[in-house]
Amino acid sequence: MYADSGFNPRREEQPVNPKSTIRNLTAALAVLALAYVGLALGALAGAQTIDPLPSWNDGKAKQSIIAFVTGVTKADSPDFVAPAERIAVFDNDGTLWAEQPMYFQVLFALDRVKALAPRHPEWQGQEPFASLLKGDVKGALAGGEHAILEIIMTTHAGNTTAEFEQIVRDWLSTAKHPTTNRPYTDMVYQPMLEVLVYLRANGFKTFIVSGGGIEFMRPWAENVYGVPPEQVIGSSIKVKFEMRDGTPVLVRLPELDFYDDKEGKPVAIHQQIGRRPLAAFGNSDGDLQMLQWTTAGQGPRFALYVRHTDAEREWAYDRKSSIGRLDKGLDEAQAKGWTVVDMKQDWKVIYPHEKK
Amino acid sequence: MYADSGFNPRREEQPVNPKSTIRNLTAALAVLALAYVGLALGALAGAQTIDPLPSWNDGKAKQSIIAFVTGVTKADSPDFVAPAERIAVFDNDGTLWAEQPMYFQVLFALDRVKALAPRHPEWQGQEPFASLLKGDVKGALAGGEHAILEIIMTTHAGNTTAEFEQIVRDWLSTAKHPTTNRPYTDMVYQPMLEVLVYLRANGFKTFIVSGGGIEFMRPWAENVYGVPPEQVIGSSIKVKFEMRDGTPVLVRLPELDFYDDKEGKPVAIHQQIGRRPLAAFGNSDGDLQMLQWTTAGQGPRFALYVRHTDAEREWAYDRKSSIGRLDKGLDEAQAKGWTVVDMKQDWKVIYPHEKK
Repeated sequence: MYADSGFNPRREEQPVNPKSTIRNLTAALAVLALAYVGLALGALAGAQTIDPLPSWNDGKAKQSIIAFVTGVTKADSPDFVAPAERIAVFDNDGTLWAEQPMYFQVLFALDRVKALAPRHPEWQGQEPFASLLKGDVKGALAGGEHAILEIIMTTHAGNTTAEFEQIVRDWLSTAKHPTTNRPYTDMVYQPMLEVLVYLRANGFKTFIVSGGGIEFMRPWAENVYGVPPEQVIGSSIKVKFEMRDGTPVLVRLPELDFYDDKEGKPVAIHQQIGRRPLAAFGNSDGDLQMLQWTTAGQGPRFALYVRHTDAEREWAYDRKSSIGRLDKGLDEAQAKGWTVVDMKQDWKVIYPHEKK
Repeated sequence: MYADSGFNPRREEQPVNPKSTIRNLTAALAVLALAYVGLALGALAGAQTIDPLPSWNDGKAKQSIIAFVTGVTKADSPDFVAPAERIAVFDNDGTLWAEQPMYFQVLFALDRVKALAPRHPEWQGQEPFASLLKGDVKGALAGGEHAILEIIMTTHAGNTTAEFEQIVRDWLSTAKHPTTNRPYTDMVYQPMLEVLVYLRANGFKTFIVSGGGIEFMRPWAENVYGVPPEQVIGSSIKVKFEMRDGTPVLVRLPELDFYDDKEGKPVAIHQQIGRRPLAAFGNSDGDLQMLQWTTAGQGPRFALYVRHTDAEREWAYDRKSSIGRLDKGLDEAQAKGWTVVDMKQDWKVIYPHEKK
């Protein structure tokens, strides 16, 4: 390149006349412009050779993620997909953060019962609250889904959306997990954070599609996952527009609006995204329909199950767990060749604080 | 700058020694790097002096839009807002495209009744279908909201989401507006297209928040408005996940899911975006709560009403219209100093095909 351009740094020992110096300078500028482009391209190429998933051990799971992303993003690939269509959906509980000994949102609701109890003396004689306030969580939850729903509605409704957001923020800044004693937002999976970043760096829009409450996730999902509120989909209760002293507020009602689990997940994806995802990530049978809906699309699609196999660093549970059961989903994943992550084998670290 | 760097093109007549030429080159490269930055900044500054709203006459409406956008985007402005928070919401019917002689989606539904009639001989004796099939639209719609709802449910449900999308696409590619004889997607407002582009060029995410059906808008909103499906919010009917011969489908049910009008608009904004918009654009009392909700936020907010004042080029209607009535909203806009666009005065052209 230097020889062609007439600029050669090794020519410095030769005499140079001033006019040709100017021509050399002009040529040098042209070379420099090309060099800048070259450097920029080199930097890009270099970035792609850096391991995008450093917390993943080499293995089938990691390779399948990289092969999929490479396939849909390389311009000359037969699987190339336009950036606008690159949608990836992630379950939250058990897929992006832990979900044991019970969903963190249920632990939040239990703490809310305690916080609200002084204003509700009648709870002392009323289940499931009476058991809860005696510290008997098992007894309180013995009423099954009905008891949980009652606890959720009582603790999640009755305030404005702004008030509830502040309550969630306050709780997250002080509450600690019962066994790890860490803030809940520390218990996100480092390898999955890397997947989120890797997908976004490759033009994907990343969405959360969770059975958990939208308004429980949005206050922290942007900071922790890099997923903005408008890309957080989940279960919701109804809210009502109201004027209070001339100021509009949205009041949270004790009435379920949408339950974003199982068959609800493809419905929510359709209603709120309106495109079929290219890739779906889950960990339980509650995610099965989302993975089915995703992989039924034409062209390249990707489905991944996180399997909880690490009793030491996290928890080990699948086919018989009451929380995060992965049974039918595991059969279907094996039958269809979906990626199944073995946490113990595939993940070098579980949580961000374990990184060296 | 040249003097400081030691590189001066006017020095060309002076003798130059080779070693200093190299030093000069090094200096030149530094200057060039700075020049590149300067050129890039200059290009940006230049772009900002190009009129971003060429189809708008100079006036208060245009000035208010530009002043708002400049205020929230200039880094040293007291009103500066981070790009992630730059959310703008737009009503569709009457704000981004025309809505006379009736909502285009109702015209679509009427065409669907005709297309489906051979399969429904019972409609000959059943209102509102009987009147419709005789060409008596007024008689058919005499049943009010109930009649419209029955027509919408009958013509919009019973198929899969993929089938319905194709029906909308086919209709739009052939149907013509009853008075202009143009494709409906030609009847979008050129000045508002410019606002959409201008906002996006300034880091805004633009959303549609319409009383119209989500699945009626999504098939064309990306091409026509540059608004992707995941940023189209509207009314919806319920859909159900179903397995058909091992393939998952979403079936459209004849049941209202959400009516995105009036008090529903702030609710939908909250549930689906999760941030309060900075700017809201509407044209009727059905948008009032959306504009109230938007402007009740802290910091700089912007609300705009399009007022239909041009009987020659479009339609003239406001306080007493049955479609797109702007009455309470107009009072509130005037009381609160919101921007009110007078189509006749403020818009040089209405539709894209009128551009010279």
